[in-house]
Amino acid sequence: MRWTLPPDRLPDAWFNVLPHLPAPLDPPLHPATRQPVGPDDLAPLFPMALIAQEVAAEPWVDIPGPVADVLRLWRPTPLVRARRLEEVLGTPARIYYKDESVSPPGSHKPNTAVAQAFYNKEEGIARLSTETGAGQWGSALSFACQLFGLECHVYMVRASFEQKPYRRVMIETWGGDVVPSPVDDPDHPGSLGTAISDAVRDAATRDDTHYSLGSVLNHVLLHQTVIGLEAKEQLMLAGEERPDVVIGSCGGGSNLAGISLPFVPDAGVRLVAVEPSSCPTLTGGRFDYDFGDTAGMTPLLSMYTLGHDFVPPPIHAGGLRYHGDAPIISNLVNNGRMEAMAYPQGKVFEAAVQWARTQGTIPAPETSHAVRAVVDEALAAKEEGADRVILFNYSGHGLLDLQAYDDYLHDRLDG
Amino acid sequence: MRWTLPPDRLPDAWFNVLPHLPAPLDPPLHPATRQPVGPDDLAPLFPMALIAQEVAAEPWVDIPGPVADVLRLWRPTPLVRARRLEEVLGTPARIYYKDESVSPPGSHKPNTAVAQAFYNKEEGIARLSTETGAGQWGSALSFACQLFGLECHVYMVRASFEQKPYRRVMIETWGGDVVPSPVDDPDHPGSLGTAISDAVRDAATRDDTHYSLGSVLNHVLLHQTVIGLEAKEQLMLAGEERPDVVIGSCGGGSNLAGISLPFVPDAGVRLVAVEPSSCPTLTGGRFDYDFGDTAGMTPLLSMYTLGHDFVPPPIHAGGLRYHGDAPIISNLVNNGRMEAMAYPQGKVFEAAVQWARTQGTIPAPETSHAVRAVVDEALAAKEEGADRVILFNYSGHGLLDLQAYDDYLHDRLDG
Repeated sequence: MRWTLPPDRLPDAWFNVLPHLPAPLDPPLHPATRQPVGPDDLAPLFPMALIAQEVAAEPWVDIPGPVADVLRLWRPTPLVRARRLEEVLGTPARIYYKDESVSPPGSHKPNTAVAQAFYNKEEGIARLSTETGAGQWGSALSFACQLFGLECHVYMVRASFEQKPYRRVMIETWGGDVVPSPVDDPDHPGSLGTAISDAVRDAATRDDTHYSLGSVLNHVLLHQTVIGLEAKEQLMLAGEERPDVVIGSCGGGSNLAGISLPFVPDAGVRLVAVEPSSCPTLTGGRFDYDFGDTAGMTPLLSMYTLGHDFVPPPIHAGGLRYHGDAPIISNLVNNGRMEAMAYPQGKVFEAAVQWARTQGTIPAPETSHAVRAVVDEALAAKEEGADRVILFNYSGHGLLDLQAYDDYLHDRLDG
Repeated sequence: MRWTLPPDRLPDAWFNVLPHLPAPLDPPLHPATRQPVGPDDLAPLFPMALIAQEVAAEPWVDIPGPVADVLRLWRPTPLVRARRLEEVLGTPARIYYKDESVSPPGSHKPNTAVAQAFYNKEEGIARLSTETGAGQWGSALSFACQLFGLECHVYMVRASFEQKPYRRVMIETWGGDVVPSPVDDPDHPGSLGTAISDAVRDAATRDDTHYSLGSVLNHVLLHQTVIGLEAKEQLMLAGEERPDVVIGSCGGGSNLAGISLPFVPDAGVRLVAVEPSSCPTLTGGRFDYDFGDTAGMTPLLSMYTLGHDFVPPPIHAGGLRYHGDAPIISNLVNNGRMEAMAYPQGKVFEAAVQWARTQGTIPAPETSHAVRAVVDEALAAKEEGADRVILFNYSGHGLLDLQAYDDYLHDRLDG
């Protein structure tokens, strides 16, 4: 069963969780002075509209018309009940997923890319720079820039640029430029840290260019809340008063935030973050101020972190290989409003293949972490004989990640 | 703008075009006797239900409940108006497309794969064999077999097996076995001809196994008519009485048939087939009896053909590299009810990239042939200042064909 909404039922405002957090958010600190950063510190990199959204006090933030027009190319996304999986598991739980894989780039990422491209265009910016690892974020931003007539310059981790050409081709198909990072050392394989440094330097040294980030920051998470807002409405159409538990995979935190933040005020709804055992930020990190990047150029953020020099192993879920977490997500976990759990990737792909063979679609490695947790939650409900409504974010498809499935099916997967 | 239908609005019957053809269909002939084949000749390869559908006389054929249940995992598919493309072209035409790319395997192919798996299961068959070139059909059949608990054995053209591993991985993720063809010569690069021979031999020599074909045959085209039937209903929701022209790309003819056959009785609706200039079956072939395969093992079919030993150049639209065409499509073209046109792939990818940069999605190389014709039809309408409603089949996405875009964007494309 699927519940779709017509394009005119796209939410007209984003949900701002800041007034609903269990404790006030600690401010970001300037990397040199360690004093709270102000708007002027951020202005070389971001448009004022996004800087304002970082600290918005109002409960709702209107979605501008031109942003809504582009989002309606694929939104509202379907809410689907995973009945075939329920039957195979023999669970009394009812499993619903929000299908964000239907966007042109194939993930939830364009929800914020479109908004960021719009606000930058509004302020007269002609060009955006960004970093990308395997290419999910870079392709989403290239897509968004094309639709608003902005140039897009992507610094892609050199190892991915050379070994995973398909998302590079997506970036170019949508008109973006993409170069391997680090730009000044062609023998270096690169990392997200080097790519952030290249992208920030690019934006800081050109008047026509701003920098764009695909996760972690408050305004990014704000833009993703359309996911949970639509899901709330669709659950009602499905005859459910509310979910008992909301589950999302967590790297920087944006897809998890999208599905879960609108449920923060509903005290009876459990919220669950799922991360890889090999990069256990929420389950194994410390809650502290740390840099967002490896080189220590960004403001210090109050978050769970494994240390900004932590190098996660090369698991297939590249989008979950981040040393920190969004301050909003970290706040919710630190104050007990959100749970966190971690899985090794072998268990993750076992669930992903079970999903593909029952529900029919092939989930992204990142999304598969949520699938694993959903299966275990449904089996726990069976054990307890408990009625339970599970909602999770199907954040992206795995069609550009099939190498991971090949490795799993032929016993070449670590962990 | 998108028009979606809830799952319970899936059509409850397929549309049988046979009673509506401008002339009776010539019967297939036995390859040895050259006499019309009977049901007994086909029984070793196909279930009786499908053999009966080859010559169905009734105007509608009921869709069995278990088939509908699986189709509802992604059907009805959306009808979308390509407003951004219209604006860029400055055309008065209204362009609508039926988005078949939303199925789990990413194309229209599972519409018939699901039905074929069901009917074989009903007749006690445990295993299906088939051939696949780049893997679109093999992945769709593996998906369908998994959902009905059948084994699926795919013979994949060796060159694709070795050079294009991603669709092989899809086949395996859904539980199918896949081996390179020809099976008896590991140094041979293989062809669709060798793979058909391997698959037919497999089915003919095992009692538990039938053979499955993804295009050309009447029952395959019948199963695809859900596409056009849904589109008719959705066009009414969009306020359109009927399309002026219906366009689809044509290899064997199944996606074109799916969108166009339900419009055959509407005399005022133009129907247009689009094929590659390098494999110009309808525009450059002869109308004659010919074998469906290279080796001459299949019945002789009455169709447009370039000769069963024709070897098309290795264009990226692998699904359009077929020497013949479905007898139903050939009949419509031969009797003037359907038009045909051909494009070189350079012009095709030019339109595909324009589509990606306006509508946001990346079409399959096969689908891009239809996109090229749609753009030219819309520009003709602009030239004439004519109001015009264009409907086409967006038969699949290009996310597993990005190498083709890379070649186009970097001037490495032939033709």
